[in-house]
Amino acid sequence: MTKRNIRLLLAFDGTVYSGWQRQKNAPTVQGEIEECLLRMTEAKITLHGAGRTDAGVHALGMVANFRTDTRIPCPAFVRGLNCMLPPDIRILEATVMPDQFHSRFSAIGKTYRYTICTAPVQPPTERLYATHVPRQLDAVLIKTALNQIIGSHDFSSFEGTGSRDLETDGFAGRGAMRILYQAEFTSEAMRPDTWFFRFTGNGFLRHMVRNLVGTLLLVGSGRITPDEFTAILQSRDRAQAGATAPAHGLLLEKVLYEPFASSP
Amino acid sequence: MTKRNIRLLLAFDGTVYSGWQRQKNAPTVQGEIEECLLRMTEAKITLHGAGRTDAGVHALGMVANFRTDTRIPCPAFVRGLNCMLPPDIRILEATVMPDQFHSRFSAIGKTYRYTICTAPVQPPTERLYATHVPRQLDAVLIKTALNQIIGSHDFSSFEGTGSRDLETDGFAGRGAMRILYQAEFTSEAMRPDTWFFRFTGNGFLRHMVRNLVGTLLLVGSGRITPDEFTAILQSRDRAQAGATAPAHGLLLEKVLYEPFASSP
Repeated sequence: MTKRNIRLLLAFDGTVYSGWQRQKNAPTVQGEIEECLLRMTEAKITLHGAGRTDAGVHALGMVANFRTDTRIPCPAFVRGLNCMLPPDIRILEATVMPDQFHSRFSAIGKTYRYTICTAPVQPPTERLYATHVPRQLDAVLIKTALNQIIGSHDFSSFEGTGSRDLETDGFAGRGAMRILYQAEFTSEAMRPDTWFFRFTGNGFLRHMVRNLVGTLLLVGSGRITPDEFTAILQSRDRAQAGATAPAHGLLLEKVLYEPFASSP
Repeated sequence: MTKRNIRLLLAFDGTVYSGWQRQKNAPTVQGEIEECLLRMTEAKITLHGAGRTDAGVHALGMVANFRTDTRIPCPAFVRGLNCMLPPDIRILEATVMPDQFHSRFSAIGKTYRYTICTAPVQPPTERLYATHVPRQLDAVLIKTALNQIIGSHDFSSFEGTGSRDLETDGFAGRGAMRILYQAEFTSEAMRPDTWFFRFTGNGFLRHMVRNLVGTLLLVGSGRITPDEFTAILQSRDRAQAGATAPAHGLLLEKVLYEPFASSP
């Protein structure tokens, strides 16, 4: 009997976790879910995530898949895991996928949102999900800079230090070349002090969104011009860019896939 | 020297607090702020809040006032209190007011928001600030019922048990008569599974918003009709109404005052 390939759509509040990836002595999202899958299926299961979020980063639409030979139906995985998991991790959907589906290698893109609060004092109910930048930002300057990075670029200037995981990130041989399809900066009418960066791309380097945001905040504060921002991108030199923005403002909204036929 | 009358505008995440009002052996918002005022001014200060929020209820725009003979300037109260207070309580503004200003007796109204998440599974990043009602609600039915309660009514059917604090709530002699100016049910385009009740009135009975919401959810689920909702209002009988909705979905948005001249 072949194992079923099950895809989970899940959301988490990353506040208390040391990121997605399993670690020996720290709570992680992958670790919590694998532990519950072990209890449900009585088999050691490896969960493959679409990406590795940093410590403190949140997700609304993370995707992961695993293989199992149990006959537990998908709705029972959703209900059962949600009963066992802590309330800051929720399984939204479980679906049987064709055998070749892989949450990371099959992904064609991701959307990340980064939330900024520009009020002089940040409302406490937003403190865990938005970064506090207590000054007015020039949205026109930021949007000008964002328009210059849409498209295919070498994003080395915005790559965090640490090894690039060439074998597993699906971008072997492509170096730091990535395509940004969307790069927005918006606020809602109801929440004039709350601003959202939204980036959709075919892939993201380590810390890339947080480094882009840290540098774009320099643009919005008038400390560098949109042209200087573009020069930083072109320099391919991490030392030119701004500081890494804090993790808690970042949220993985969505992982994008080509339409995939579900297994019968 | 007369004491200055200082008004604080403040916000809090009520998750870990046993409500606004000071209690002997439980953390409360009033208790935390009074403790910090004692440390700042070296005098015992009583903080008068515009209302008493229940345990777990949040606030974006709570108002409170106190009297002090220190010469500490208002901006220093904001900075100083925010340094000492836990991160889930923030002082947004401090203003010197005329002597006759009182946060509760001078208030002419309040706006409360109640947030509902109707997604099958609730995103964990919203679990502390929205009540999960995992079913579609009929917004037309709810709005029909809401339109019938705008205006002046005896809200006894929606009053929580416990003593009505006639001497201090500013409504002595008016029994359960209150005026609702606004009663809305809306969602945001960006968040189709998130719904907001918003009530503005001249005053609210104990648990009134949570009891209204609990009963309106019966209307939205088709369990009672808008006309039956109106009959419950007219019955003035708490036993007719629905259950009290959970505290954590409720947020005090704003306290309303007539324009007041600030002291020089």
